[in-house]
Amino acid sequence: MKAAVLYGKNDLRVVKKKVLRPGMQEVLVKVEACAICGSDPKIVAHGWQNQPPYGEYIPGHEYAGTVVALGDGVVGFDVGDRIAVESHKGCGVCMNCIRGFYTVCMNYGNLAAGHRHYGFTTNGGFAEYAVNHINTLHKIPETLNFEEATLITTAGTSMYGITRIGGVEPGETVVVAGPGPVGLMATQLAKQMGAAHVIVTGTRDERLKLARELGADATINVKEEEVIQRVFEMTGGIGADVVLECVGTATALEDAVEYTRKNGRIALLGMHGQPVSINASRIMLSNITLAGSRAEGDRSVSKVAPLMGDGRLKCRPLVTHTFPLNQINEAVKTFVKRIGGAIKVVVKP
Amino acid sequence: MKAAVLYGKNDLRVVKKKVLRPGMQEVLVKVEACAICGSDPKIVAHGWQNQPPYGEYIPGHEYAGTVVALGDGVVGFDVGDRIAVESHKGCGVCMNCIRGFYTVCMNYGNLAAGHRHYGFTTNGGFAEYAVNHINTLHKIPETLNFEEATLITTAGTSMYGITRIGGVEPGETVVVAGPGPVGLMATQLAKQMGAAHVIVTGTRDERLKLARELGADATINVKEEEVIQRVFEMTGGIGADVVLECVGTATALEDAVEYTRKNGRIALLGMHGQPVSINASRIMLSNITLAGSRAEGDRSVSKVAPLMGDGRLKCRPLVTHTFPLNQINEAVKTFVKRIGGAIKVVVKP
Amino acid sequence: MKAAVLYGKNDLRVVKKKVLRPGMQEVLVKVEACAICGSDPKIVAHGWQNQPPYGEYIPGHEYAGTVVALGDGVVGFDVGDRIAVESHKGCGVCMNCIRGFYTVCMNYGNLAAGHRHYGFTTNGGFAEYAVNHINTLHKIPETLNFEEATLITTAGTSMYGITRIGGVEPGETVVVAGPGPVGLMATQLAKQMGAAHVIVTGTRDERLKLARELGADATINVKEEEVIQRVFEMTGGIGADVVLECVGTATALEDAVEYTRKNGRIALLGMHGQPVSINASRIMLSNITLAGSRAEGDRSVSKVAPLMGDGRLKCRPLVTHTFPLNQINEAVKTFVKRIGGAIKVVVKP
Amino acid sequence: MKAAVLYGKNDLRVVKKKVLRPGMQEVLVKVEACAICGSDPKIVAHGWQNQPPYGEYIPGHEYAGTVVALGDGVVGFDVGDRIAVESHKGCGVCMNCIRGFYTVCMNYGNLAAGHRHYGFTTNGGFAEYAVNHINTLHKIPETLNFEEATLITTAGTSMYGITRIGGVEPGETVVVAGPGPVGLMATQLAKQMGAAHVIVTGTRDERLKLARELGADATINVKEEEVIQRVFEMTGGIGADVVLECVGTATALEDAVEYTRKNGRIALLGMHGQPVSINASRIMLSNITLAGSRAEGDRSVSKVAPLMGDGRLKCRPLVTHTFPLNQINEAVKTFVKRIGGAIKVVVKP
Repeated sequence: MKAAVLYGKNDLRVVKKKVLRPGMQEVLVKVEACAICGSDPKIVAHGWQNQPPYGEYIPGHEYAGTVVALGDGVVGFDVGDRIAVESHKGCGVCMNCIRGFYTVCMNYGNLAAGHRHYGFTTNGGFAEYAVNHINTLHKIPETLNFEEATLITTAGTSMYGITRIGGVEPGETVVVAGPGPVGLMATQLAKQMGAAHVIVTGTRDERLKLARELGADATINVKEEEVIQRVFEMTGGIGADVVLECVGTATALEDAVEYTRKNGRIALLGMHGQPVSINASRIMLSNITLAGSRAEGDRSVSKVAPLMGDGRLKCRPLVTHTFPLNQINEAVKTFVKRIGGAIKVVVKP
Repeated sequence: MKAAVLYGKNDLRVVKKKVLRPGMQEVLVKVEACAICGSDPKIVAHGWQNQPPYGEYIPGHEYAGTVVALGDGVVGFDVGDRIAVESHKGCGVCMNCIRGFYTVCMNYGNLAAGHRHYGFTTNGGFAEYAVNHINTLHKIPETLNFEEATLITTAGTSMYGITRIGGVEPGETVVVAGPGPVGLMATQLAKQMGAAHVIVTGTRDERLKLARELGADATINVKEEEVIQRVFEMTGGIGADVVLECVGTATALEDAVEYTRKNGRIALLGMHGQPVSINASRIMLSNITLAGSRAEGDRSVSKVAPLMGDGRLKCRPLVTHTFPLNQINEAVKTFVKRIGGAIKVVVKP
Repeated sequence: MKAAVLYGKNDLRVVKKKVLRPGMQEVLVKVEACAICGSDPKIVAHGWQNQPPYGEYIPGHEYAGTVVALGDGVVGFDVGDRIAVESHKGCGVCMNCIRGFYTVCMNYGNLAAGHRHYGFTTNGGFAEYAVNHINTLHKIPETLNFEEATLITTAGTSMYGITRIGGVEPGETVVVAGPGPVGLMATQLAKQMGAAHVIVTGTRDERLKLARELGADATINVKEEEVIQRVFEMTGGIGADVVLECVGTATALEDAVEYTRKNGRIALLGMHGQPVSINASRIMLSNITLAGSRAEGDRSVSKVAPLMGDGRLKCRPLVTHTFPLNQINEAVKTFVKRIGGAIKVVVKP
Repeated sequence: MKAAVLYGKNDLRVVKKKVLRPGMQEVLVKVEACAICGSDPKIVAHGWQNQPPYGEYIPGHEYAGTVVALGDGVVGFDVGDRIAVESHKGCGVCMNCIRGFYTVCMNYGNLAAGHRHYGFTTNGGFAEYAVNHINTLHKIPETLNFEEATLITTAGTSMYGITRIGGVEPGETVVVAGPGPVGLMATQLAKQMGAAHVIVTGTRDERLKLARELGADATINVKEEEVIQRVFEMTGGIGADVVLECVGTATALEDAVEYTRKNGRIALLGMHGQPVSINASRIMLSNITLAGSRAEGDRSVSKVAPLMGDGRLKCRPLVTHTFPLNQINEAVKTFVKRIGGAIKVVVKP
């Protein structure tokens, strides 16, 4: 098969590789589309802890395709099924996995113990074929094509963030910080779970415009407006019930702590490269909950799939570009530089 | 009656004051003991936002005594009842109070709306008599004297911190940072709720010794040992399930974020004067929950009272000094300077 | 003012009554519309425990109107505000009220302790004016007229049922048993909270048709189809994730226990006149949760009001009839006999 | 090896069997002790759905022993480890298993899908050796001998019941219905989690006496006293906060619904042979939660193990008899007929 293999830092080549056979509770997937996630360019540039060796490592973790072969002990899936995958497969044994927290598996990176992080610690989807454990498979609603279906993990990540702060109650005001793919899916999800008002904050007007088209009630351009003051104005002086921090900048988190209401909740979905200086006093005095949210645990992907299928969560506007596998380096470049307003860039093997 | 009235910064005088009559759902309490809390010296030195005017303001919020008169609409209490009080009485109307989060009342400081923070925004217990709403009253178990009963809010605060991170499950490892009164009650409570191991961290050996006497399985002197490394050693490399941060120093919170296990929970009970630089990346990647915990919400005091009564939570070792009301300034000084190993200093009107 | 006063069993007369003055934290409401609830005809026929004396008792608890006068201590409301009410006002003191469970106040019926159940234990809304505590008031979105606004408690009751079983997760299958007003609002709410499929069961085709028009994905007429078998067919043999039992017949509850999936949840919103014989073995072996849900606790009304305002929850199709106050007995008859397909019958004072 | 094999109804014979080799993530256990559970005599008499064929089926699911061989992919365990087992091993794939609800696995009995119910759908512990998946293993604290350690699943079952109703809060009153092994462990656990008062109900005075010795604050002999009335008397007219129904008789559940307080919770741990006629109206009007609790899900066994190890949960008083494997039929008879006051009867291979 053809596969994009990482040979070293910034050395991603499309080469021929042998197709593997699925093992116990695994299937072979004919990959039809694999999206580029924000972590992929970092992997290309710097590698990943616990990755397969350079020269063997196939990245890519947001993929969809068709089941073409079954290993032993497969239940619930059959050859021909159209599926999309989530990237984390826990060991199934540790204190976290046993309760659904498999994105924080205590045996992360330990292949012998059964853990898999597809596209990170084991091979992924920038290839014609991939082998996946059935725990990571989700059937695609008929209404979705494969490109759209690659967004299933993105939506699952947004969902998990919402779960981590106890859900969104009908009538609440939710601020989504960062109109990237995770933020744009979170915007739609919060609304579809009954949020009265969803406010999206960001720095690019075209993204904020898209957020409004996808259902945001209001947007704040943090470069042009005082975000803390604006949130209080928009909430009658109360502050936000819920903040979904999907951006990963220090300012976004610092601000969130300031404009969350007394007893409000903040989910931290963004990845922060640096320590963040937060107002711990306000967290304590205002009884605020701040919950880290790693990826798509708690089977979140299975919750959002039906809503992608019936059109409540729109994916198409986010898929802005597609490239054939051969042009993967150009695809990555398009994604990183946001050429042509790129949001989700999908590679088609 | 005699009362300690604050006339200005660092000007606390014992003077004569008129005894008030209890209003709707209020009682008159003959105060028998009122403990000094960490916030009291700050109030004496700097005042409090929304406080009564200097010259009228009676601080003190950890008090116990006897009901001597009833206002209208009182149910559940009678003259002669021995009671201890909690200091927050919410408006009972706002989105937070209606659900038990009355320590973060949206009408904080608004007396007309029904909010009271005894000893802060309205008069408190450094006096022979105080007027309290029945929501703040808790009957004292017979086995407790009034001095011990002043610790009921302290224990309630510890309880609320535990509630805020979803409780302690049997078998868990809990780190209590800070062996002050709140931390020492938290130590006992965590153990009495089934924690397998309670580790207390602090800087003073005599306090850590007391923590062990009260049930801590282990202690770490953070001045002498590498606390992060030690917690991982003590937990088989896993980290703490739960951290109760009861100290309010930046280092304690920063460290807690580092030694909490994947999917662990941190309750923030300590008051932080400065912003704290935390490892936001670890919170997100390890799916950690950090919950601010303000005071004694959710009727926490009523949960701990029976355990104080039957001896599961020991109060006596914490009450190190008592002073008559006339010597309140000396009592405050004893508390602040920790003269004679002072932990809880109680004033007896 | 004119008011409908109950003089004895089945003796409801429209007479002149004095308008009361609002007390502490109360307002005077000019009632514009008061709907008939299923409990009203029972009250007319049999009275209510703890009711005001015959000859003084004004029933009616689903009303909306305008604030025309304020008592002391009112915050958040002003003269001229358009409001709808919820009927339960807890004592605010007991172990349940303090945490938001005011529909199961431990001081139910005790007026001196501050409890009010408007239209039940104290006078209600079948009158030109009513006095209400501010805890029971909810501002009406501009888009709603008063007749529609009377449904706010109905929707709040549906909401509370969903809260009681831990919410509806996106992607779940919800069965709503009983397409009465509570069931029809529950149908819409479940969908607006992200349910993938909502199945409504009932006995009348025209109601089931309305359920589908309001968003139900499927309906089952239990007189014509085997409901247990049909639910399993519709869920791929798994059973329902959530059942909202809004009908109060023994068969509906018995069936619900049978067709709920392993680990599923049942909310019991219907009032049962008789003991029900349930399959306790299945509850235990399938780890099912069955939660009683009384009325509109946990400030549920405030959660649904915004969704009524923006049209996500449709009320108009449920308001089938209106009558002037003078014709209240005819209104009750129309409601009870379902004359002209009556669903909600609204009285306009 | 020697093993007790079921050849048909009431035909349990000790015969020679081949020792199996452990597979993926499995270990071989040298069984040192296997207790008889209430379900075992039923299995001997009637068989079990999905059981192995008669002539091959080795029952027994409460066992402890030593790891003597490892299969592939074993992490966390080594040869020589002293362990006790829980009986349910979920498929790890389905919607329930993925979140920790493996006792209600959607693939129950499907060996190919990875489900195991040791001693029920696959062979168990009435044998010299057993093969177990590592998910079912729990290391035994040094302070426990193997006989005591067989109670680890019993205690886990009690724990799960408490988890299912949201835990026991400090200060609550808990009624445990039924002083069998599960009830006696529940009694101790509730107390060790901070319950203020634990009341045990039953029919045998010697068992109730043991309950008091193990920490129950009060007991009610339901044959001699009016249990509903007594619970209200003991709780100041309020009713029980929590009921743990561990007996499985219709009367016990019916009564529990009556004496639970408004907003209280009932966990249903007992197995009911017949439908139970319950007061559904009270469940709804009093906002009661009734949660079925199947066996030892949510890794409950790992929560209680440390408390068994440090003596907070006493096991020794429950182990009344031991028999060698050869006398297993006598052991079963002793257990069923409660000869010599038998509570837990342990078989030693």
